[in-house]
Amino acid sequence: MDFKARHNFYSQYLKNDILPFWMKHSLDEEDGGYYTCLDREGKVFDSDKFVWLQNRQIWTFSMFYNQLEQNPQFLQIAEHGAAFMEKHGRNEAGDWYFSLDKKGQPLTQAYNIFSDCFACMAFAQLSKASGNQAYAELAVNTFKRILERKDNPKGIYNKATGNRPLKGFSLPMILCNLVLEIEHLLSPEEVEATLKYGVNEVMNVFYKAELGLIVENVKADGSIDDSSDGRVINPGHGLESMWFLMDIAEKWNDSALIEQCVQISLQLMDYGWDQEHGGIFYFLDRKNSPPFQLEWDQKLWWVHLEACIAMLKGYQLTGNKQCLAWYEKLHDYIWEHFVDSEFGEMYGYLNRQGEVLINLKGGKWKGCFHVPRAIFQLANLSNKIAQAEELKIN
Amino acid sequence: MDFKARHNFYSQYLKNDILPFWMKHSLDEEDGGYYTCLDREGKVFDSDKFVWLQNRQIWTFSMFYNQLEQNPQFLQIAEHGAAFMEKHGRNEAGDWYFSLDKKGQPLTQAYNIFSDCFACMAFAQLSKASGNQAYAELAVNTFKRILERKDNPKGIYNKATGNRPLKGFSLPMILCNLVLEIEHLLSPEEVEATLKYGVNEVMNVFYKAELGLIVENVKADGSIDDSSDGRVINPGHGLESMWFLMDIAEKWNDSALIEQCVQISLQLMDYGWDQEHGGIFYFLDRKNSPPFQLEWDQKLWWVHLEACIAMLKGYQLTGNKQCLAWYEKLHDYIWEHFVDSEFGEMYGYLNRQGEVLINLKGGKWKGCFHVPRAIFQLANLSNKIAQAEELKIN
Repeated sequence: MDFKARHNFYSQYLKNDILPFWMKHSLDEEDGGYYTCLDREGKVFDSDKFVWLQNRQIWTFSMFYNQLEQNPQFLQIAEHGAAFMEKHGRNEAGDWYFSLDKKGQPLTQAYNIFSDCFACMAFAQLSKASGNQAYAELAVNTFKRILERKDNPKGIYNKATGNRPLKGFSLPMILCNLVLEIEHLLSPEEVEATLKYGVNEVMNVFYKAELGLIVENVKADGSIDDSSDGRVINPGHGLESMWFLMDIAEKWNDSALIEQCVQISLQLMDYGWDQEHGGIFYFLDRKNSPPFQLEWDQKLWWVHLEACIAMLKGYQLTGNKQCLAWYEKLHDYIWEHFVDSEFGEMYGYLNRQGEVLINLKGGKWKGCFHVPRAIFQLANLSNKIAQAEELKIN
Repeated sequence: MDFKARHNFYSQYLKNDILPFWMKHSLDEEDGGYYTCLDREGKVFDSDKFVWLQNRQIWTFSMFYNQLEQNPQFLQIAEHGAAFMEKHGRNEAGDWYFSLDKKGQPLTQAYNIFSDCFACMAFAQLSKASGNQAYAELAVNTFKRILERKDNPKGIYNKATGNRPLKGFSLPMILCNLVLEIEHLLSPEEVEATLKYGVNEVMNVFYKAELGLIVENVKADGSIDDSSDGRVINPGHGLESMWFLMDIAEKWNDSALIEQCVQISLQLMDYGWDQEHGGIFYFLDRKNSPPFQLEWDQKLWWVHLEACIAMLKGYQLTGNKQCLAWYEKLHDYIWEHFVDSEFGEMYGYLNRQGEVLINLKGGKWKGCFHVPRAIFQLANLSNKIAQAEELKIN
C-alpha cells in the first residue's frame, strides 16, 4: 500500500468502524454520559462511569468536530457527555472524581489528577467546537487546579510517607500534550512556560542518556532510583511522550529536538519489542530483575498505537527509514492481533503470544480515545507523506 | 505413593528445601528484619520490607518452633524479625505500616489492615515460643485495633465515597484463622464470639447457595451486587477459607459444617479449574463478563497450595473420594509447574499455560508463608491419614 492508499484505508476504518461502534453502543440515553464497559459485541457489561473515559470521549468527538468534519452529530455526542460531567463530575473543590455510578453519583473520590487532565482537554476542545464560554472557563479553571496540585497530585489519599519521594513521569508527559490542547485559552507566555517545563522534565529528567531509556520514576532530585519503582520501564509510555514532543518541536521549528525524539523512540522500540512473539512488552525492569507488575508481558492496544504514531511521525518529519520499517511492522501487528473485523473496534488486552486475553472493547481504562485518536493521526500523517511524495515526483 | 511415604516426602521437602532457602537468603544481618524480594537463585533484588511478609515470616518460624521442632535457630530467626518490627513496624496509633525501607523507615502508611492481621498472628505465635509477655500484649493490642477498625479498615485512605458500600470477604475470612492463632491470649467468650461472627459471614453472607460460589464483595446488607466488584470470584480465596472453616468445625465437632465446607470446596474446584491448560484461574467473573483483573488467567502458587490443603483436609475428615482425586491432581500440578528443584522454593507466578511468568521466589506479596505452611499442613494431614489407614488394617 502506498501512503495515499494508507490515508484512505485509515480514514475509512475510522469512519466505517471505529466511530460507528461508539456512536451506536456508548450513549446512555436514560441518565446521560457514556457507557464505556462494552463487551466484544458492544453490549454494556457494567454501567459505572469512569471519569477518565467520560472526559476522553467528550474530547474525541469535539476534536473530530473541530478537525475532521463539522458533523452536528459529533457535537451533539460531545455535548451529551459534557452535560453529564458538568453536572456530576466534580466535588466541591472543583476536583474531578475518579468514578461515578450510572446516575452520576460519585463512587470514587478525586484522588486521581488524570481525571482533571482529561477534563481539561475535553472542555477546551468542546469550547472550540461549541463556542460556549462556560466550557472554556471550566477548562481553564481545571488547568489552574492541575498546576496547583501537581506536586502532590493524590492529596490526602497519598499513602507514601515522604521518606522516599519519587517523581512520576506521567504528569509532566501529559502536560506537554495538554498545553497544546488548551493553547487557545492561555496566554502565549503560559503556553511557552508550561511547554518548556514539560519538555525539560521529559528530556533532561526522565530520559536517561546513560540507559538510553525513559524511566517512569526518579528521585526528587531527578536522579536514578534503584527500587523496583525506580527500575520500571513502560516503553509505550515513553513512545507516546516522544510523539507529543515531536509535535512541540515542530511548533518550535526545532529540528535538533525532532531528531533527538526520533533516536529515543528507536531505542525504546529496540528495547521494548518482544523478539520471541512480537509486540511490545507492557512493563520491563531495566536491570532484568523480576517485575512487580503481574501483567508485564501483555500486549496492550494503546502501547502499539502510540508506538505506531511515533514511528510514522518520525518518518514523516525526518525520512528515517528505521522509523518506516518499525511503522510497517507495528501496523501489521495491530491489524493481525488487535483489530476485530467482525464486531468492530479493537481488542485491548492480548497475552504475550498475541492472543486475545480479555475480549472487551471498552472497560475501566479503555474507552473512545486511543484508537480513534491514533487512526486519525495515522490518516493525517499518511496524507502528509503522500503529498510530499507527490511533490517530489512532480 | 501411600500416605506414609507422602508424609516423609513433604517433611523432607520442608526440611531440606523450603526452610534452608529462607534461612540462607532472607536474613538482613546489617539492619535487621528479612529480605523478601529474592530472585530465582535467592539473590536480593529489592531491599524494601513489606510488613505483611515480615510478620508472616516471624509467624512461620515461631510456628515451626512451637509445632515442628524446638530448634533454637527457628526461635532466633523469629526474634530477629520481631525486634525489627517491634521497633519500626507501627505508627503512633499502633497501626502497622504497609512497607518500610531497608533500615526500617516507613515508606507506605498504615492503610492496609492485613499488615495488622499478620502482626497479630506473628506476635501471638512468638509469645508462645518465647514466653515473652510483651509479645503477647502486642498481639492482643493489635487484635483489639483490628476489631475497632474492621468496618472502615482503610480509614482516611478510603477512596470510596460511600454511595455503593461494599463489604469484602478477606477480613471476615482472615479473622476465622486469626482467632485460632491467638486463642491462648483471649477469653473463651471472645474466641467463640469472633469465630461465630466469622463463620456466619463466610457461610451465610459471602457463600451464595444460588450460585454455588463464594463472592468477594457483597452489598452492605449482604445481598449480591452486580458491578464488576460484585461479580468477581477468586476460587483460591474461597478454598483457603474452607480449610480455615474445617479447622473450626473440627474444634466444634460439627460434622455438618465439615460436610458443607467439603461440598463448597468441590464446587469451587469444579468452577475454578482451567479445563484447557490445567490449574486454577486467579479471578473469574461469575457472569462471564470481561474481568477487570488483567492477571485473571494466571496460575498463582498460593491458590494451588491452599486448594491442595482444602482437598486433603476434606479427604482426611470425611473420606470423600472426589477430594482425594483433586488433591492428587493438585499435588501433581504443583510439582510439575511450581517446584524449582534446582534452586529451591517454588515459583509464584505462572501464565495460563503453566509456564513460569515471573521467576521470583519472593517479592512484594510472596514471602516465607504459604509454601512452608502448606507443606507442613500436607505433611501432617498425610500422617493422620496414614495412621488412620494403619488402624483400619490392624
